[in-house]
Amino acid sequence: MRTSDDIRAIGERIKPRELANWHDLLGAEPHVASTEGDWRVIGKIESAFKNMGLKTKVHEFWALLPRPISAVLQIVSPESRDLILKEKILEEDLATSHPELDPGWNAFSGSGAVTSEVVYANYGRKEDFAKLKELGVDVRGRIVIARYGGNYRGYKAKFAEEAGAAGLIIYTDPGDSGYAKGLVYPEGGYANETCIERGSLQTLGYSGDALTPGVEATKDAKRLDMDKVGLCTIPVQPIGYGAALEIMKRMQGKGVMEEGSTRAWQGGLPVPYRFAGGEALRVRLKVVQDREIRRTANVIGVLEGAVEPDRMIVVGCHHDAWGFGACDPLAGTITLMESARVLSELAAGVKRPRRSIAFCAWGAEEYGIIGSSEWVEANRDMLATDAVVYFNLDMAAMGADFGSSAGPSVRGAIAKVAGDVPQARATETMVLDAWKKRGSDALDATLPAFGDLGGGSDHVGFWCHVGVASAGFGAGGSPGTSYHTIYDTLPWYRKIVGDDYEPARMITHVAAGCAQAFANETLVPLDPATMVREFRRHLRDISARGVSAGVWPAASADAPSVEGLPAVCEALEQVDREAIETHGLLAATVKAWREKAIDERTTAEELNDLNARLLAMDRAWILTEGLPDRPWFKNLFAAPDRDSGYAPWILPLLRHVVEEKDAGGAEAAIKSYRDVLRSLRELAEVPG
Amino acid sequence: MRTSDDIRAIGERIKPRELANWHDLLGAEPHVASTEGDWRVIGKIESAFKNMGLKTKVHEFWALLPRPISAVLQIVSPESRDLILKEKILEEDLATSHPELDPGWNAFSGSGAVTSEVVYANYGRKEDFAKLKELGVDVRGRIVIARYGGNYRGYKAKFAEEAGAAGLIIYTDPGDSGYAKGLVYPEGGYANETCIERGSLQTLGYSGDALTPGVEATKDAKRLDMDKVGLCTIPVQPIGYGAALEIMKRMQGKGVMEEGSTRAWQGGLPVPYRFAGGEALRVRLKVVQDREIRRTANVIGVLEGAVEPDRMIVVGCHHDAWGFGACDPLAGTITLMESARVLSELAAGVKRPRRSIAFCAWGAEEYGIIGSSEWVEANRDMLATDAVVYFNLDMAAMGADFGSSAGPSVRGAIAKVAGDVPQARATETMVLDAWKKRGSDALDATLPAFGDLGGGSDHVGFWCHVGVASAGFGAGGSPGTSYHTIYDTLPWYRKIVGDDYEPARMITHVAAGCAQAFANETLVPLDPATMVREFRRHLRDISARGVSAGVWPAASADAPSVEGLPAVCEALEQVDREAIETHGLLAATVKAWREKAIDERTTAEELNDLNARLLAMDRAWILTEGLPDRPWFKNLFAAPDRDSGYAPWILPLLRHVVEEKDAGGAEAAIKSYRDVLRSLRELAEVPG
Repeated sequence: MRTSDDIRAIGERIKPRELANWHDLLGAEPHVASTEGDWRVIGKIESAFKNMGLKTKVHEFWALLPRPISAVLQIVSPESRDLILKEKILEEDLATSHPELDPGWNAFSGSGAVTSEVVYANYGRKEDFAKLKELGVDVRGRIVIARYGGNYRGYKAKFAEEAGAAGLIIYTDPGDSGYAKGLVYPEGGYANETCIERGSLQTLGYSGDALTPGVEATKDAKRLDMDKVGLCTIPVQPIGYGAALEIMKRMQGKGVMEEGSTRAWQGGLPVPYRFAGGEALRVRLKVVQDREIRRTANVIGVLEGAVEPDRMIVVGCHHDAWGFGACDPLAGTITLMESARVLSELAAGVKRPRRSIAFCAWGAEEYGIIGSSEWVEANRDMLATDAVVYFNLDMAAMGADFGSSAGPSVRGAIAKVAGDVPQARATETMVLDAWKKRGSDALDATLPAFGDLGGGSDHVGFWCHVGVASAGFGAGGSPGTSYHTIYDTLPWYRKIVGDDYEPARMITHVAAGCAQAFANETLVPLDPATMVREFRRHLRDISARGVSAGVWPAASADAPSVEGLPAVCEALEQVDREAIETHGLLAATVKAWREKAIDERTTAEELNDLNARLLAMDRAWILTEGLPDRPWFKNLFAAPDRDSGYAPWILPLLRHVVEEKDAGGAEAAIKSYRDVLRSLRELAEVPG
Repeated sequence: MRTSDDIRAIGERIKPRELANWHDLLGAEPHVASTEGDWRVIGKIESAFKNMGLKTKVHEFWALLPRPISAVLQIVSPESRDLILKEKILEEDLATSHPELDPGWNAFSGSGAVTSEVVYANYGRKEDFAKLKELGVDVRGRIVIARYGGNYRGYKAKFAEEAGAAGLIIYTDPGDSGYAKGLVYPEGGYANETCIERGSLQTLGYSGDALTPGVEATKDAKRLDMDKVGLCTIPVQPIGYGAALEIMKRMQGKGVMEEGSTRAWQGGLPVPYRFAGGEALRVRLKVVQDREIRRTANVIGVLEGAVEPDRMIVVGCHHDAWGFGACDPLAGTITLMESARVLSELAAGVKRPRRSIAFCAWGAEEYGIIGSSEWVEANRDMLATDAVVYFNLDMAAMGADFGSSAGPSVRGAIAKVAGDVPQARATETMVLDAWKKRGSDALDATLPAFGDLGGGSDHVGFWCHVGVASAGFGAGGSPGTSYHTIYDTLPWYRKIVGDDYEPARMITHVAAGCAQAFANETLVPLDPATMVREFRRHLRDISARGVSAGVWPAASADAPSVEGLPAVCEALEQVDREAIETHGLLAATVKAWREKAIDERTTAEELNDLNARLLAMDRAWILTEGLPDRPWFKNLFAAPDRDSGYAPWILPLLRHVVEEKDAGGAEAAIKSYRDVLRSLRELAEVPG
């Protein structure tokens, strides 16, 4: 088959040595967004793209990018003790002594000082603060200490602030990543007692620059008032578990194991965890950051298509990091660079792709998915019309176990490519086989188990704002994590993930193979029918969730009807019936189109129309006015979880109804989904 | 109903104040078997029984009871450090400063000194040593460090010795009992860093005195050669987790988390656990104990029956401890004393029971279930003929959540009594209701979930050696454990279990109520049919276990037959068919006997015969020659697990076949069970 040959040709050109070179090039120094190191990385990527013959552009933007000024964390009583806010320098990894490495900090912390008692809030999730309230543990005016995990750290700060806390300390628990998981760095890959997870706290109703939602963050863009967008106001400081132990071991209140419902709050520190520290333990937290608008940039390199140059496959990964970024983002960025190198080499030597492929190295992802969101906002209309698909590679090559979270309409095409890519560190095994061994799709055993695409990286603008079919690629399984610490270095990567660059070779092969397939197949390999099938699956889930939350009765319930609610059940059944019909129509239609696409009598205009319709079918899920309370998110199929950040809300309009227990809003939400289905059916009707 | 009235009358006489007094009386000082404190406790129980008007006897015996002389545990290199081998004395519990408290020790440790590298062996179970062997971790000549839990500690020593270890350190892991479970003593009830679990290492093919298996350990009994009975020869030392951490944190080998199959080996200490310590870490262990034959005693107080004085209900709990023994054994012993007080008071005031009730405070249980075993051996023929039932109370009143492990033939009667006993710390709830809420019997929803009776306490002689129907009572749910530490004090008990003595009130009520029911009902309330029903359930389990172990094929397998094996399947099916028939016969027969027992025309001789038959039906499960390799264990229904000690092997002849993969032995084993069933059917045939 033609495609398999293409994929083989790609594979032959990918070089582990080149991947290691990209890593050396981009991971040579810390490169936090907007710093001098960041600009040197931008320059290196620009040169590389130009050397490949790509049409290259440095897309500058001006975003709110805070920088740390100072921070202090002290135990004030019962004795005085300063806690360490930076990682220890390691002889075994002298990169850790680089002078440009920042101490531990959380971007967008409030600036200020507070001295108070402490309260432990487990992972600082919505339900954790609700539990503290239920137990009568007063958080007001206190410094909350919460462990990393369970949600996006910005929500820990948001919920702490909403609960009235005066400050927040976030620490890495050794039960989640540390000695309880394996050997610690530098002996092994897990967090030692000084490891501090940096990261942003930005939690707004949109991705991208905090001050320019919906528009490009140009130098002169009209900006919102910084004090009114809802940034964090309390001081927030991340620490390692060595420092956390100093606080936790001095706490004196009731133990979490004394409540049956909070037994899982006990972590891996060698003390009984407690809800409150008591009066005797007082802690002082002072954090100072600036909040400046700073300049950084995306680097875009386009391999122009020969037949449909306006239609664009977008492959992206950010380039900014909290330190050296050997894993985050470079474990992905190097596969972006190598994909670009290999595909441009093939295009020069064989022939240009049918459609254009844009390779995008995003800036300032770490602060709030900023660079990609600004580029999407700047190119919204073009993308809505012409973007075929977006592939995201953030931190992709972290091990040999391949996985993907993807919109349903691209899953089949990805699986097909994975069936032609050799599995890393194996012989005579393809990625698809190894992947399926770890789990199959619940409804289609020929597919591997894909994840649902939520928030957390640069696909968000494409997928949630514009409705471009998207997928993230990744591969894990290595024993450790240096996530957002100063230990995210090349020595860490080469020791823990390996220095064979086999995972990066595999990721590059899948990513470049998918880009090639979407660029070259006459009819783009999008699959709108599977999107509807998944809609039905999630409709069942959300119906059950609504029943168990008491928002609406079970469809078959004989319980006395609550006014209006039987109508919800009927409407849910109605939309499901329409989905069955729509699924059948789309499956048959796209099958016919595929046959038409290989029929020589089909004209270029007809083909162009069919491709436009397939792209429009993904965009049919876009609701122009967006989701309630966060209109920037417009995709009715998926959005980031409003209360945790990373996980997805699937069918977010209906999910919103369930979470708000707003049964009255159910019918309007269901109507929106019926509109989507009607649009899909209309798109399937080719006139003449 | 008459029985409910009796149980109410018992309940009215049980006094929490009396239970607290028994606790003060018996928990006033350490009383390790054969010490002066032990003899003072024996004297106190003897006086108490006499004051109750019981026919009282101090049954002395002479058993191998080692005493600790000295022990040293040191880290020799990379630096020198002595490790602490006793608990810290607590101001909050000055009982902990008593001069008669021993440092931490394990009775029956070998005496000797060894300096070596260390190897971590998880719980020191058979499968843990097999895993070390599979991984190529050399145990030979090394000092093994293993954590408590998962098996009887004697097996840790046995398997370590068999693997060639030169010494063994056993520690309490904080993940199993310590800060990870809750607040630690004296603030809470869990193990602090110095807590050391004492206990015996005796693992022989019999219970009781090591040198006099099968016969009473009188002063002049013929004794085996101490060096030939298979006692432990390597030094073994228990330690707390503070001392364990000093060793574990200096280990340098491969981490247990690096092997997928050993991830559960990671415990709660704040270091990554490793298989081997490496050459740099050397530890010195020296243990010296004597091995003397010492005198101690059981105290037996008999409330004589008025109608069938030879027939005996036996209620027992040991009196010896490793320290103060406030929980182990006194949380049970006080309920034995109060049961005796209440029932003798009732007998004096109302009327004597129909049958005799023996209250037994056993000696030297802690060393190897010695006192009860010696008494059983001394009275084997009497018990085989006349013992109706044995109830064991070891550590019974440890919380409000009642439970029982019991032979199937007594379960119904226990549940009936529990239905008339008020639940501790509740109003208008009976023990049976609360108990059933925690779980029901798999085959009979009217019964609560009983445990299967294995080894580990004083029921073993009655149940496993003679075949007397037995049950153990207990109640838990309190937040902590002071098991075998010097913190097993009255202050610990009153702080953690409570000072209301409601659990002890409840246990006394159930135990005395059960004793009363078995003593007074005209026909003893034994239920041989349920024993057969349980036999069938366990036969299915063991059949499946044999299939999955590859010992015999699945009954329905179409696989090519292995010679002899289809015969096993047929024999299993045959014995099951006979069990169905036997169950039906017994159920109908006993029902008829119960009607006959309340028929005024039934003569005393007839009644006597029916009662004798019911007792004989329990004894029908006894195999005179005993189990393979351990003939002292003769009950074909249940035995202690040969490889772990505490858990039961049900249908041990068949289990032995499965564990040994001895398919050839299956038919003989099955024949033994067919013989049991035939005996049961014969006993059901009343002549004339």
